Amino acid sequence: MKRVVLALGGNALGDNLHEQMIAVKIAAKAIADLIEEGYEIIITHGNGPQVGMINLAMETATKVDNSLFYIPMSVCVAMSQGYIGYDIQNALREELLSRNINKPVATIITQTIVDKNDPAFNNPTKPIGAFYTKEEANEMSKRGYDMTEDAGRGYRRVVASPKPIGIVESETIRTLVESGHVPITVGGGGIPVRVTDVRHLKGTSAVVDKDFASAKLAEELNADMLVILTAVEQVAINFGKENQKWISKMSVEDAKNYIKEGHFAPGSMLPKVEAALTFVESGLNRKALITMLEKAKDGLAGKTGTVICS
Amino acid sequence: MKRVVLALGGNALGDNLHEQMIAVKIAAKAIADLIEEGYEIIITHGNGPQVGMINLAMETATKVDNSLFYIPMSVCVAMSQGYIGYDIQNALREELLSRNINKPVATIITQTIVDKNDPAFNNPTKPIGAFYTKEEANEMSKRGYDMTEDAGRGYRRVVASPKPIGIVESETIRTLVESGHVPITVGGGGIPVRVTDVRHLKGTSAVVDKDFASAKLAEELNADMLVILTAVEQVAINFGKENQKWISKMSVEDAKNYIKEGHFAPGSMLPKVEAALTFVESGLNRKALITMLEKAKDGLAGKTGTVICS
Repeated sequence: MKRVVLALGGNALGDNLHEQMIAVKIAAKAIADLIEEGYEIIITHGNGPQVGMINLAMETATKVDNSLFYIPMSVCVAMSQGYIGYDIQNALREELLSRNINKPVATIITQTIVDKNDPAFNNPTKPIGAFYTKEEANEMSKRGYDMTEDAGRGYRRVVASPKPIGIVESETIRTLVESGHVPITVGGGGIPVRVTDVRHLKGTSAVVDKDFASAKLAEELNADMLVILTAVEQVAINFGKENQKWISKMSVEDAKNYIKEGHFAPGSMLPKVEAALTFVESGLNRKALITMLEKAKDGLAGKTGTVICS
Repeated sequence: MKRVVLALGGNALGDNLHEQMIAVKIAAKAIADLIEEGYEIIITHGNGPQVGMINLAMETATKVDNSLFYIPMSVCVAMSQGYIGYDIQNALREELLSRNINKPVATIITQTIVDKNDPAFNNPTKPIGAFYTKEEANEMSKRGYDMTEDAGRGYRRVVASPKPIGIVESETIRTLVESGHVPITVGGGGIPVRVTDVRHLKGTSAVVDKDFASAKLAEELNADMLVILTAVEQVAINFGKENQKWISKMSVEDAKNYIKEGHFAPGSMLPKVEAALTFVESGLNRKALITMLEKAKDGLAGKTGTVICS
């Protein structure tokens, strides 16, 4: 049986509570198709709009109600994992039952270890939470937050996006998947924590990229395949140009050359290809697939998508 | 090996973010003591202050920022499970590692099934979330919410507290505990859901009592013991009176007689004794223990606490 870490894209969740309830039902069908094909599936997902909403709500509420404590980013991520996991596990459970498949689905609150010396901490770039006036932003800077002007819409806090170096709960995920369960994990890239001494894990104001976290998890679980789902069916070179070409398969070397040649957009396809590479290069016979959710089944069957292999 | 469902009381978590971080460290030591003694531990916990904070923040933020959607109670419970579980799993992991015990600890987002015909739905009594003016409360009543005047402090929404009839994720919990993991589950009594047709689980505006949910889980896991932790070392009859008497052991019959005689305060010791009874009566050789966290080890060794058995 092939073990597959399936990283859902933002379109599998939508941008708000209502969209999410509809989107997860569609996603559940595509995931159930893979389970029916016999793949061992581990589900991972992002949390951009959801953690943004939680962070915004917490910050807004703290401003108007001083009985409320400031809630750190790590706790907001933990909350978003509960919120999103609850919807995914329900939709998938229902879809599986409708196909007479009795496989438990469960969400595991998951922490991702980052390196406190990761260079990303020197240059925080990921905007999160509420918009502030210049005065408020100055005030927050003095309190130690990194603030940036966001496209004329006001000032926002920015946090770092360090690379994952370990998944704290991977043994739990492994136990569940080996017992026939479908785990939902590393939501939003996992709650970012750093090791402050040999044992303590300290929540960190950061956001881990969910594709990199999924790649690290796939590595720790010794998965056969990492599937990164996105809005396009295949990766292209010369994207949007006349000589655009869809890629069905690329070696690690091909991928690295394409990256050097600037084929993949930063903040879009580039990090996905880079995350795929970290998994493929982490061991023998490890493949990654980039495609869209609706094509995942065909992609795993080798009919479409872009496969990256050594 | 004895399987024990350990229901943490509110004092194991504190009333806010800061208190929680300190309280879970103390709780972790007491729980690690039990694990060291060889018990299979399943941790459950309440979420009163935490879900209140989340609900209040969401409602407050929605009032001042209309880009935000209303977040239902079920989603707030899911968020609170992530928030609290994250802290407990970290504190316990650290405590176990400091004792050279390598046991994974993981939080499972857990749903509790309630009966839509539960009489509690006819008389919602549990206040949640923000305070409103009389005008706002009238407006919300028209939109279908149950509102009540709360001790002169304003109006609040009230929800029902129905009895749990099943724990959706109990198979996942069983798999983990049988593999040597320590699961954290049914946080806040679980996300209340009802079965709308054969398969769909619908989030419900309700709060399930965490001790009753823990009793139901203990039943489904075929646990040997349900431990309900509270602020006192033992249950008393004639509590606070001259003839007060601490009880070391009571049979189901004793307990029912004491209940009839009005020995236990509603909203305090009464629901704990009632929850204990539901577990003890659910099968053979099932015992419940009511004591305080610091005395759990001695209680399980039969030295203190109040044991309820058939």
